[in-house]
Amino acid sequence: MKLWDKGFSTDKKIDHFTVGNDRELDLHLAKYDVIASKAHAMMLGKIGLLTDEETQALVNELENIATSIENGEFVVGEAFEDMHSKIEFLLTEKLGNTGKKIHTARSRNDQVLVAMHLYLKDELTEIKQQTRTLFDLLLDLAEEHKHILLPGYTHLQIAMPSSFGLWFSAYAESLIDDLYFVEAAYKVADQNPLGSAAGYGSSFPIDRSFTTEEMGFETTKYNVVAAQMGRGKVEKATAFGMSALGATLSKMAMDICLYMSQNFDFISFPDELTTGSSIMPHKKNPDVFELVRGKCNKLQSIPNQLALVINNLPSGYHRDLQLVKEIIVPAIQDMKACIEIMTFSLKEIRVDNNILDDPKYDYLFSVDTLNELVQNGMPFRDAYKKMGQEIEAGTFAPKRDIDHTHEGSLGNLCLKEIREKMQKLFP
Amino acid sequence: MKLWDKGFSTDKKIDHFTVGNDRELDLHLAKYDVIASKAHAMMLGKIGLLTDEETQALVNELENIATSIENGEFVVGEAFEDMHSKIEFLLTEKLGNTGKKIHTARSRNDQVLVAMHLYLKDELTEIKQQTRTLFDLLLDLAEEHKHILLPGYTHLQIAMPSSFGLWFSAYAESLIDDLYFVEAAYKVADQNPLGSAAGYGSSFPIDRSFTTEEMGFETTKYNVVAAQMGRGKVEKATAFGMSALGATLSKMAMDICLYMSQNFDFISFPDELTTGSSIMPHKKNPDVFELVRGKCNKLQSIPNQLALVINNLPSGYHRDLQLVKEIIVPAIQDMKACIEIMTFSLKEIRVDNNILDDPKYDYLFSVDTLNELVQNGMPFRDAYKKMGQEIEAGTFAPKRDIDHTHEGSLGNLCLKEIREKMQKLFP
Amino acid sequence: MKLWDKGFSTDKKIDHFTVGNDRELDLHLAKYDVIASKAHAMMLGKIGLLTDEETQALVNELENIATSIENGEFVVGEAFEDMHSKIEFLLTEKLGNTGKKIHTARSRNDQVLVAMHLYLKDELTEIKQQTRTLFDLLLDLAEEHKHILLPGYTHLQIAMPSSFGLWFSAYAESLIDDLYFVEAAYKVADQNPLGSAAGYGSSFPIDRSFTTEEMGFETTKYNVVAAQMGRGKVEKATAFGMSALGATLSKMAMDICLYMSQNFDFISFPDELTTGSSIMPHKKNPDVFELVRGKCNKLQSIPNQLALVINNLPSGYHRDLQLVKEIIVPAIQDMKACIEIMTFSLKEIRVDNNILDDPKYDYLFSVDTLNELVQNGMPFRDAYKKMGQEIEAGTFAPKRDIDHTHEGSLGNLCLKEIREKMQKLFP
Amino acid sequence: MKLWDKGFSTDKKIDHFTVGNDRELDLHLAKYDVIASKAHAMMLGKIGLLTDEETQALVNELENIATSIENGEFVVGEAFEDMHSKIEFLLTEKLGNTGKKIHTARSRNDQVLVAMHLYLKDELTEIKQQTRTLFDLLLDLAEEHKHILLPGYTHLQIAMPSSFGLWFSAYAESLIDDLYFVEAAYKVADQNPLGSAAGYGSSFPIDRSFTTEEMGFETTKYNVVAAQMGRGKVEKATAFGMSALGATLSKMAMDICLYMSQNFDFISFPDELTTGSSIMPHKKNPDVFELVRGKCNKLQSIPNQLALVINNLPSGYHRDLQLVKEIIVPAIQDMKACIEIMTFSLKEIRVDNNILDDPKYDYLFSVDTLNELVQNGMPFRDAYKKMGQEIEAGTFAPKRDIDHTHEGSLGNLCLKEIREKMQKLFP
Repeated sequence: MKLWDKGFSTDKKIDHFTVGNDRELDLHLAKYDVIASKAHAMMLGKIGLLTDEETQALVNELENIATSIENGEFVVGEAFEDMHSKIEFLLTEKLGNTGKKIHTARSRNDQVLVAMHLYLKDELTEIKQQTRTLFDLLLDLAEEHKHILLPGYTHLQIAMPSSFGLWFSAYAESLIDDLYFVEAAYKVADQNPLGSAAGYGSSFPIDRSFTTEEMGFETTKYNVVAAQMGRGKVEKATAFGMSALGATLSKMAMDICLYMSQNFDFISFPDELTTGSSIMPHKKNPDVFELVRGKCNKLQSIPNQLALVINNLPSGYHRDLQLVKEIIVPAIQDMKACIEIMTFSLKEIRVDNNILDDPKYDYLFSVDTLNELVQNGMPFRDAYKKMGQEIEAGTFAPKRDIDHTHEGSLGNLCLKEIREKMQKLFP
Repeated sequence: MKLWDKGFSTDKKIDHFTVGNDRELDLHLAKYDVIASKAHAMMLGKIGLLTDEETQALVNELENIATSIENGEFVVGEAFEDMHSKIEFLLTEKLGNTGKKIHTARSRNDQVLVAMHLYLKDELTEIKQQTRTLFDLLLDLAEEHKHILLPGYTHLQIAMPSSFGLWFSAYAESLIDDLYFVEAAYKVADQNPLGSAAGYGSSFPIDRSFTTEEMGFETTKYNVVAAQMGRGKVEKATAFGMSALGATLSKMAMDICLYMSQNFDFISFPDELTTGSSIMPHKKNPDVFELVRGKCNKLQSIPNQLALVINNLPSGYHRDLQLVKEIIVPAIQDMKACIEIMTFSLKEIRVDNNILDDPKYDYLFSVDTLNELVQNGMPFRDAYKKMGQEIEAGTFAPKRDIDHTHEGSLGNLCLKEIREKMQKLFP
Repeated sequence: MKLWDKGFSTDKKIDHFTVGNDRELDLHLAKYDVIASKAHAMMLGKIGLLTDEETQALVNELENIATSIENGEFVVGEAFEDMHSKIEFLLTEKLGNTGKKIHTARSRNDQVLVAMHLYLKDELTEIKQQTRTLFDLLLDLAEEHKHILLPGYTHLQIAMPSSFGLWFSAYAESLIDDLYFVEAAYKVADQNPLGSAAGYGSSFPIDRSFTTEEMGFETTKYNVVAAQMGRGKVEKATAFGMSALGATLSKMAMDICLYMSQNFDFISFPDELTTGSSIMPHKKNPDVFELVRGKCNKLQSIPNQLALVINNLPSGYHRDLQLVKEIIVPAIQDMKACIEIMTFSLKEIRVDNNILDDPKYDYLFSVDTLNELVQNGMPFRDAYKKMGQEIEAGTFAPKRDIDHTHEGSLGNLCLKEIREKMQKLFP
Repeated sequence: MKLWDKGFSTDKKIDHFTVGNDRELDLHLAKYDVIASKAHAMMLGKIGLLTDEETQALVNELENIATSIENGEFVVGEAFEDMHSKIEFLLTEKLGNTGKKIHTARSRNDQVLVAMHLYLKDELTEIKQQTRTLFDLLLDLAEEHKHILLPGYTHLQIAMPSSFGLWFSAYAESLIDDLYFVEAAYKVADQNPLGSAAGYGSSFPIDRSFTTEEMGFETTKYNVVAAQMGRGKVEKATAFGMSALGATLSKMAMDICLYMSQNFDFISFPDELTTGSSIMPHKKNPDVFELVRGKCNKLQSIPNQLALVINNLPSGYHRDLQLVKEIIVPAIQDMKACIEIMTFSLKEIRVDNNILDDPKYDYLFSVDTLNELVQNGMPFRDAYKKMGQEIEAGTFAPKRDIDHTHEGSLGNLCLKEIREKMQKLFP
């Protein structure tokens, strides 16, 4: 059943090509069409386009559908183009003409748009919350391991002393930056587009403020053309947020894979979190973190992928926009799985306590030695030259007592201040 | 002069390859190194690493350099690797050993990082302000042309009546969404990274809160490893903001190019804003808008370009990060030029008042006619079928009186509400 | 069953995260694992690591599995990590120890790699053939419509006369360029990687030339490290080829969507190939072509997506590479569907014969008029000025007889030469 | 001076915005406009649109301009839009009306297009030749170091023995794959687009085969619309080739940076090829290789950047295409610099001869030990289990004699076969 069927038999080939995998993806979105349909029905009742009885019947039936979705009983069969058709079919099957009236003063484009906004709000909220959980864990790990030293690298060369306290909390503080973009995406999503119809509004006297409030949106996306232009844009906004988070997780995963290599051997994980090799029995591979890295790198490609699809399309709806759904929905699932598995796995991280005992790390202390010369009065450039000569000559003797006290240094991690910065995002 | 020269003669080839076009790009950034150097000198004075006289001498000399930069007299010659070397050279030339002391407790990486944060804050502020100016113009144009109708398209097919009021203000409201990302980028930039040194802090008892306040940052990027990881990230954050704005401008430019085509002929611009053809004397080409479109599409590639450069680099500084500057600085100049030229040009837009008189636009009114049938009691699906048959049979007679009254529709643009939404970004 | 199980119970969560949707994707690849396994078994027999009986038993059983795959009876159940495990399980179930021996002197990485090379060779061959079919159709359409004129646009402004002959055959000739990249990808794929084991070869005296010949590869990817580095690279090569084709199809689809708009009205398609609107009964939307455009634009993002995943990974296998499969396999299906539907749909294209009768297209003829002045002796720049003044003054009278005779012009399409150029790719 | 000036004073702002940095970029391209202009003039002479004297005068003057370009004396001043205007101005200044006639039967679009094709052919030839030089060096290094062992990693875990012979020649063999794409790009460029005029051909009876032969193109891009569609496409084709090469160089640079880290310490370079730190005197940083990595990663973003600019533009010229030049020309310079510096630097590589003496690499030999068990008759899965237990129990004793003999393995590098494969690209 196609809603726009006009009696012509559309070729099967075309049908298959145009429907794509909407039916499967729509399981993520059906819940939100029901919410929006309820609000729409109540609004139609309020402005007198439905009687109270009709309104109530629609609301009741939509609540039944919501329950079936929640119970996993809702499916979109081959007979339906998408979940919107299926829901409308269910309403009409139960309520006859009253069911048909739900489509008054709205368009398919409208429905897809509002369901996507509601869906993204929920997913962004969950992503934010998951990120907070990971952030809290990272700060706990930083506190727990704050005295355990680690070589700090620049250019992958041994550079200066770092610590697990610094390393864990660095990623925590970085996540705050990423959440600024998740928040920005949320603001884009938190505007009600319902009522834009096909993108140019409606001659019905609909009450958009009512549905905005009923669905819990912060505000209305007023201009109906702007609301329609949100298709693709709200998904790209979400993808920016996920891209930011993805970059941070991917970088941490890269560090982890490196640090698990026998050439570093800084950290390890229990066997349950590593995988083996079909040919090398000694291997304990960091597959989980490699997949986090790979998936998070893939996530970083999503804004560009969306841009390529929607770029240079003039204003107004185009069918190309349908493809946006098959890009963003799996990406969100990947994002959530990555944050979750990172949190799950990092709980089990084991840290080597004596890394810096290896003499190859002696040079880590050259800068502090240099600084001591400077604090004792030697101009920086002269001290630098003297040290360089000692190192070249092999006479450099490391001073291994570290005394870093300034804010954000390994002796003063400022975890409290970092937590407060994050807390501002959770008012 | 290379700061890290240890007496070895580095091959010229290598020198040329590694320095790149830093000297030219640095003219955008030199001002900010001076600001940060002043704050750093004052901080060194405060914690007793410089005497009051040394501090004052450095501050005075830095202010002289600031003046020379402002007057366009500052250049980075071939003898210097970058502007940081040049500024330090000037200080040492004037102040001898005191000049050398400015490098105490900081690293080149540090300097580049803090200068970039300060630079981006200024540029993002300007971009935001320019966007506001364009927004205000678009709302004025919407108000001025609110009664002039325009065909609304879906699938590039004639669909429903729209108006220039809707069209102009749609882009205005869209710009608000984009500014959420500009704001997010600003938050990332508005954190003081100075004091991270080579990315692992310093053994000097530096006072980072002092420099945070002195330079006017909202907060400190506390963790020194996180501060260092900001390289590439703060630029990518900025690029997200510009990418969002770029997508909106590009789309509007696409509309303009289409609407200037003789096949639409909805709008025109004075000759001064169009260009000719070397072979077709009748042409009045929309080159400005094509270049806005092209440049804004190029801007949308910047986050991905940055991601490819910094992706999968483990934590800690890598020289790859130097390339980030040559990507972001020209992109910012392009962004500002595009917003400015759009504002400059749109002031001159001329709109055709009688577009819908052409009978090919009759079908625009089919939806309203359909809705009227529904409001008179016919179920939607039945009304849809009846209308379809009339159109197929060629008996459809358009009803040209439009009465759209709901929020955000062509009869009720909600310009005031849209302006208030924007105003929240300018508290 | 995991091949690398060492007795530890790997956490379910991890298992789910790491397996992904391999089981589904593997249905595209299982056939090629069987082909490679057969060649591998025969080679093991040849070098004496299997007896003739063992070899024959394995070959027979693999042929049974091949049949079950061809008949659609092969499935990879939840108990198996991927199709490789399932195939090995089937062999062992049937043949006991002999079945286990198939894994001698090869690694999972090896198997995935060689199956991917074989798969891509087949898919690239099919894509090339499909493109040839589309090319032939376009040339036929060009021949058929060679006298029907069309406005040629520059800057979306009416510029010079074109024709459907030119338009159809332009896309045909463009497709040849794209096939150069499909060919390049094929050359990358047409090298046998089998024998690289985990990426560093094997201590078994395997005979790689034998398997190269047995599987029909043009040559061996000799260096085992290079062979392993092919993972991700051979897929990116394929993606380059598809990206090139995608750009051409997308551009043609954009033209079609524009030309179907009532503002152009140059072409149309039967109702079976257009779709309707849920709210506007008169609409005949070009959904098929919009989806071709969108999918082909998405295809253009694939090389970048792959680059982000594999970028900056040091040499040697990483689990990130598993994700490459879930990117490339669906992309190939999309590519083939797009070429097929374009061919299917273009057969039905209907072209308007009298487009240029509309007086708005008069200016199309200005250049030819200009050229006539020049041929009659007036210097080009003077003729240009004269024409410009006539157009400005409204006194320009179009000369509508077109006489373009040079190679590749609308009067001389050179279809034969274009066909010969394509033919070189089908020796 | 603008060629299309019609007496209107075009606003300065617009002028600045539209011209961009063409004047600077054009220095790379001016030579090729002269070559094409000569061929065009000779063709105009051949078909009788110029007298023999006019033709000869133009050819002589163009040769003078070619000399001035070669001597670095040619500049495009502020008075000119681009080098095409400047060259035409020089011809007219010297030859009066004859100079003006050079523009007969061609368009600016035409000129830019043919100059770009000629330019890309030259650059692609140079890139191919540079790559061959690097390839030869890598094979020489492989031969020289074929007996020096290196740990082979999978998942960044110590896996199996590799060698510098394998490592160097792996990158050599990989470069061959990349050249398939360089070759494909060359084929796209090696088609003469001259004669397409503004993209729709000309009413003059031009002889395109003549210019094709005169300029040394393999064939003509026959269809004039296809020729015009080459703008952006031929650059993207080139970018695909460079992207392929970039990925290989970037990966090798990543390996080098890792192997220079003290945690690996496999290779080193003389001081002249490393750089120091402004704060850590012991550092010898791999800046050259980090910049190769970064620049080559940036190069991989170019196809996508071009795609974003040209995507979804309908057929026919658009001014957006001008931006393509500022993307591709610097990218080509970067590509050549990267290949050259890699070749220059790799000549100086120093390799550690005794890497595997470190006991942490003992596990490298586990696979060969396993294989020996299998060759002695134990089924693979049983041998795997036995070995795993030994490793777990710490009783595993490595067998350090390696005997890999198959094609492409560390005992049989097949350098001759790899060289022959490359040689096919240099017939």
